[in-house]
Amino acid sequence: MELTAQQKQDIEAARSALSETRRATVPALEEVLYELIPVLDRGFVRVIDYMGDDAAIVQAARVSYGKGTKKVSDDAGLINYLLRHRHTTPFEMCEIKYHIKVPIFIARQWIRHRTANVNEYSARYSVLDREFYIPSADQLASQSTQNHQGRGDLLEGEEARRVLEILKEDATRNYDHYIEMLNENEEGNIIDESKSGLARELARMNLTLNMYTQWYWKIDLHNLLHFLSLRADAHAQYEIRVYADVMLETVKRWVPIVHNAFMQYRVGGVGLSAAALAVVKKLLAGESVSQEDSGMSKREWRELMATLEQDV
Amino acid sequence: MELTAQQKQDIEAARSALSETRRATVPALEEVLYELIPVLDRGFVRVIDYMGDDAAIVQAARVSYGKGTKKVSDDAGLINYLLRHRHTTPFEMCEIKYHIKVPIFIARQWIRHRTANVNEYSARYSVLDREFYIPSADQLASQSTQNHQGRGDLLEGEEARRVLEILKEDATRNYDHYIEMLNENEEGNIIDESKSGLARELARMNLTLNMYTQWYWKIDLHNLLHFLSLRADAHAQYEIRVYADVMLETVKRWVPIVHNAFMQYRVGGVGLSAAALAVVKKLLAGESVSQEDSGMSKREWRELMATLEQDV
Amino acid sequence: MELTAQQKQDIEAARSALSETRRATVPALEEVLYELIPVLDRGFVRVIDYMGDDAAIVQAARVSYGKGTKKVSDDAGLINYLLRHRHTTPFEMCEIKYHIKVPIFIARQWIRHRTANVNEYSARYSVLDREFYIPSADQLASQSTQNHQGRGDLLEGEEARRVLEILKEDATRNYDHYIEMLNENEEGNIIDESKSGLARELARMNLTLNMYTQWYWKIDLHNLLHFLSLRADAHAQYEIRVYADVMLETVKRWVPIVHNAFMQYRVGGVGLSAAALAVVKKLLAGESVSQEDSGMSKREWRELMATLEQDV
Amino acid sequence: MELTAQQKQDIEAARSALSETRRATVPALEEVLYELIPVLDRGFVRVIDYMGDDAAIVQAARVSYGKGTKKVSDDAGLINYLLRHRHTTPFEMCEIKYHIKVPIFIARQWIRHRTANVNEYSARYSVLDREFYIPSADQLASQSTQNHQGRGDLLEGEEARRVLEILKEDATRNYDHYIEMLNENEEGNIIDESKSGLARELARMNLTLNMYTQWYWKIDLHNLLHFLSLRADAHAQYEIRVYADVMLETVKRWVPIVHNAFMQYRVGGVGLSAAALAVVKKLLAGESVSQEDSGMSKREWRELMATLEQDV
Repeated sequence: MELTAQQKQDIEAARSALSETRRATVPALEEVLYELIPVLDRGFVRVIDYMGDDAAIVQAARVSYGKGTKKVSDDAGLINYLLRHRHTTPFEMCEIKYHIKVPIFIARQWIRHRTANVNEYSARYSVLDREFYIPSADQLASQSTQNHQGRGDLLEGEEARRVLEILKEDATRNYDHYIEMLNENEEGNIIDESKSGLARELARMNLTLNMYTQWYWKIDLHNLLHFLSLRADAHAQYEIRVYADVMLETVKRWVPIVHNAFMQYRVGGVGLSAAALAVVKKLLAGESVSQEDSGMSKREWRELMATLEQDV
Repeated sequence: MELTAQQKQDIEAARSALSETRRATVPALEEVLYELIPVLDRGFVRVIDYMGDDAAIVQAARVSYGKGTKKVSDDAGLINYLLRHRHTTPFEMCEIKYHIKVPIFIARQWIRHRTANVNEYSARYSVLDREFYIPSADQLASQSTQNHQGRGDLLEGEEARRVLEILKEDATRNYDHYIEMLNENEEGNIIDESKSGLARELARMNLTLNMYTQWYWKIDLHNLLHFLSLRADAHAQYEIRVYADVMLETVKRWVPIVHNAFMQYRVGGVGLSAAALAVVKKLLAGESVSQEDSGMSKREWRELMATLEQDV
Repeated sequence: MELTAQQKQDIEAARSALSETRRATVPALEEVLYELIPVLDRGFVRVIDYMGDDAAIVQAARVSYGKGTKKVSDDAGLINYLLRHRHTTPFEMCEIKYHIKVPIFIARQWIRHRTANVNEYSARYSVLDREFYIPSADQLASQSTQNHQGRGDLLEGEEARRVLEILKEDATRNYDHYIEMLNENEEGNIIDESKSGLARELARMNLTLNMYTQWYWKIDLHNLLHFLSLRADAHAQYEIRVYADVMLETVKRWVPIVHNAFMQYRVGGVGLSAAALAVVKKLLAGESVSQEDSGMSKREWRELMATLEQDV
Repeated sequence: MELTAQQKQDIEAARSALSETRRATVPALEEVLYELIPVLDRGFVRVIDYMGDDAAIVQAARVSYGKGTKKVSDDAGLINYLLRHRHTTPFEMCEIKYHIKVPIFIARQWIRHRTANVNEYSARYSVLDREFYIPSADQLASQSTQNHQGRGDLLEGEEARRVLEILKEDATRNYDHYIEMLNENEEGNIIDESKSGLARELARMNLTLNMYTQWYWKIDLHNLLHFLSLRADAHAQYEIRVYADVMLETVKRWVPIVHNAFMQYRVGGVGLSAAALAVVKKLLAGESVSQEDSGMSKREWRELMATLEQDV
């Protein structure tokens, strides 16, 4: 990801403009505000704005008149309680806004989270940049043989080489043809005066799904945590997980108490079904258990035993 | 609305705590931040936090790297265009958070706007304050004879006196009985040690609908404008309109360009149906028109003629 | 809850009108369609309409061309998998519409679930019926001494008698005064020709929060299950739980496979935090554990031990 | 769009399965249920299910006990009133579910309407069909010279030929390479036993944005009308407008009274700003008006004069 001189200057200008405010302010997040945090080969995450902090959650939960609370330890106790018991509305009282650059096939997954506000760069209105995602060699995985929607071993040798060749050549050619059809280069200059140029809203259909797009994306903390619990998870596709990982770090800067509770109760926690709970109780009572008697499917049983680190 | 000494002190402390921020900041709104703006006899609106400004809408619409834009006049042109053509997503990029005190029967209308985030003071958890709404004499209206859900002329004399008497006596008595059933006064002290006290989640059912409740209410600018277009409107019930009016003033402080466009295209604008547009064209062409030929109902016709200030 | 002759006749007419349809149809739910299922002393739940069935979830998950699938056992396997892994969108493909009569103080909790569609009976437009909720003696509980928002032991003797007396007298008096202020009885006739009558939108403020209101409430299955997981839960207030219990029975009629999965993975399941999982592993390994070393709060520890039926 | 024999059979089976129901049923919509309505070169719209009818809107607005109402003319009057005054909640009481096949670059516009429920065919899980959109010659337009996001004149001769050549060749080649990388043909058979095959979630990134995708899409009537008012509009991109046009026809079959009101008050209606209304009043009073004095921009002025069919 290379920024133009103008873009660098715009970011620098935004970073250096300081104001006084009476609002809840979080120095650790201010530190990285507007900065470009690289993700994948040409993508990024930038924090553009935020509203609220850990104390704002407590303030809303208590519908209080003042700004903060007496003791940080009390705040942590209440926040843990709220998160644990899924009292979600106080977490909606914090809001964050990102600027994101992401490949289109990942943007299509991302947009399924409907509770965010989005402004995407318009390819009806503007010409897209020549930027597409090519996986690094250590991400060039085969289809999983166990999981219909996961990855297996890495491709090697000639097969890997051929895949990279295809991805690069096709994205490049299709972009070249996009420019040719537009009859307009990336700087917005007409290429051939004798031609009319295809409408942008049509020409874009020739682009490949690994082209990068970008958007402003704004969401409240509750819905962000939900997004992160799904997308910073081992089952998520690698190419979205790396964005979620970076965003989780911004959450840590922003609301450290919430981040801590989230790691404890969501990321590090597990859910047990009624049948799984019955198995755990039997194990604790020293009784024998088996998949056949448990009412669980083989896959559920395997997952439970892995979770409990049992060799049954 | 009288604040306790503690509440006043909390507000003052919040107002006097200044921080440095890199975020978009609006001095005119900072001026009133946390301050209590009185509404009705004991209600209020307080602005607690905000995200974004006029420029943030332009920034999101353009998915730009920098903070602001070149010229304010360009911003106004783009914002007018966006509002006029109902390109609503850039307005979702601004967010505001209020602390509101409002009678329950109005809160029940208000909550129907589902796109906001809400934390309400819990009467399962806490004892409600002895505060209820009594209309002023100039709002004691009779049922409209023309409109099934509107107000007509003011009540007068004995009838007005009796209504006020009922409202005050019933709200007071029911609150006294609420406290008696709780066996706990407003300060949280037990009244009669020989009694158990009814659970708060039950005792509250004896309260009247003019009791005040309060909540933190957070919403994006697009949805706030939608709320205001319905609730700052002449058809809205007076008791919610006064809140909307006050909030519209905070919008003017916060995003003056948007406020101006909103007054021009929403508040001051009108919608014409296909039939109404046909009537306007005929009038402009000097042709004769009549309700009977227009395909409009009598009420629609009357409203159109009033809008056009025509005496047909 | 007593229906008028007209209401009974309307329900009977709706029940007896049969049509032919190509849509997914569920005979077990059709059986109770439009019927009034009583809840509390004067409330009810009525199923008015529904869209989809168990197979419709599978159909949507597979984006298939046909109506059903081959085998019911496959459907159950897929539905279990979807619910377990929180793939929630296929459950949104089923929809149900209820007609509900519920006390206002419970309606205020209920409406906090923002993902439903609601049409409430309007007290701006119409006169409310003389119907209010009075708890039965076995629900007249004191405030819990352990839980800030729960119930403790039942009130007894004189205290219980006095509470019921207050609730009945205040609701009755306030309703009588509501009618007096309206100057219009329940049948819509003017009481005193010399009076104007207070506007309905104002008079309603004198009513108590245990008055019944009613609404049409429509929701998709995913969001309904979320509602039920919170409201059919032991921590929910009794007066909303009884509605959730009745609605859970309608879910069982409607989508029995989903109901079964819901009981297994949500209602009967538990969530373990990272710390709780570590404790379980230690217990299974025969190691000693204590609250102090666990990183859990005393309350969390107590709850975990109760869940595991451990006497530590 | 060619269906497989199995797909045709599945549709036929769904269409021929009739059930008895007590629900509101609309014969005109039942007629086309499950049928494939072609759109563009290979896309389609299918109505899969629906809930409610015109009467259901009236029923919900009145919160009534019975099914229908007395007179159809009363229903029309109320529905007109509700639509005109933006009382939107009763329209949310009807719901419709579609199965849609649409090019990805259009699906990306479509999904921005966040109030619908969606299940999309997963290219992480399955191999996509070899189907892509190629515009017909009469849609091969140049970029508009007046509108940054619209179309101008048609391309002709060699330029048009070359565009079609590029679109076809690139989509075909990229799909061939997609299959090669997957090492799995459309029937799901392995092509070369010596290769591993790239994971589906990665291989899809090589596809072009004119590939067709498909989804189940469910929405309530209020939000559908909002979608149609934006997408069946002259400013919408042709490739989404043709879908909206087809769906508007299904609305006409389903809720003819609502359809009629929608055409009258939304599609055929116009909005006037405060300044535009002032101009209309002056024109009606025979006063002279000019763009300069109007406070309107040149574009707004031009649009207003076109709307009023004035030659000023």
